[in-house]
Amino acid sequence: MRVLGVDPGLTRCGVGVVEGVPGRPCTLVAYYVVYTDPADELPLRLLHLDRSLTDLVAEHRPDAVAVERVFSQHNVRTVMGTAQASGVAVLAGARAGLPVTTYTPSEVKAAVTGSGQADKKQMTTMVTRLLRLAEPPKPADAADALALAICHVWRGGTRSKLAAAADQARRGGARR
Amino acid sequence: MRVLGVDPGLTRCGVGVVEGVPGRPCTLVAYYVVYTDPADELPLRLLHLDRSLTDLVAEHRPDAVAVERVFSQHNVRTVMGTAQASGVAVLAGARAGLPVTTYTPSEVKAAVTGSGQADKKQMTTMVTRLLRLAEPPKPADAADALALAICHVWRGGTRSKLAAAADQARRGGARR
Repeated sequence: MRVLGVDPGLTRCGVGVVEGVPGRPCTLVAYYVVYTDPADELPLRLLHLDRSLTDLVAEHRPDAVAVERVFSQHNVRTVMGTAQASGVAVLAGARAGLPVTTYTPSEVKAAVTGSGQADKKQMTTMVTRLLRLAEPPKPADAADALALAICHVWRGGTRSKLAAAADQARRGGARR
Repeated sequence: MRVLGVDPGLTRCGVGVVEGVPGRPCTLVAYYVVYTDPADELPLRLLHLDRSLTDLVAEHRPDAVAVERVFSQHNVRTVMGTAQASGVAVLAGARAGLPVTTYTPSEVKAAVTGSGQADKKQMTTMVTRLLRLAEPPKPADAADALALAICHVWRGGTRSKLAAAADQARRGGARR
């Protein structure tokens, strides 16, 4: 299973592609950081992000896309841009016809380090070790995107199946 | 000048199209509310919103798109969805090669009612009067989208020219 993970951001958007199966070490395919210029207007920045992500999805043909879920508790100054970037990332996967799953930072940390409270340094260390890289991926946005992709591989898409089942049940309930 | 205004929302997204020139009454072209099902998964909802907005832009061929700017002071429970919807709306305009301008709610209120503090009822009344409609547009999301479009016509795209000039100056400054 090949997964493309996205750590959404308007100024720096991390993208990491890994391959693997649940419970075994994953293999690194590639990682990137998409930058947009804060001096540019919003439409241009979202357009650049959309094209970059769409191109990377087309190039790597992942089986699934995993995107970090954004919370309003994040940095208030940047949270709107991050949320808009995450919308663009989710849409890029959906437009390619791929299943897109969102994970909270705690879910990713727990999957990769065993603790939902892990700090950035610990995350980078684990991603480097799990992918058997000679050096930590840089910048950190790329490490977070790789962690998201690993998290999704290891959970084997379970989450989206569960969510689909829950949706199904909810709709069934609403119909009655 | 034909403007398509968007009042972004994930569950209800208002779209209003008007035609006019600065300082004169605008003419209503059409208005819509795009609904997405809260029971559906986020990727599906963003995809539906993207397709609907892209179709409406293609159908009405506006000269510009105006989108309400989202703040983190909005309702915290829904603000992330609203921000993601606004990202999708801005992107839909940009992907069609159109200039996209964002306005704060106060800017729109001031343009349409003369007061940045106007309430929803006053806004709807003014939109109905300004477009010489027999009845207020319903639901209110459509009225807000029409107000955004009127605001942009009356400001004659001034804002984006100013913003472009400011960007230009800022970049010139950064290069020195």
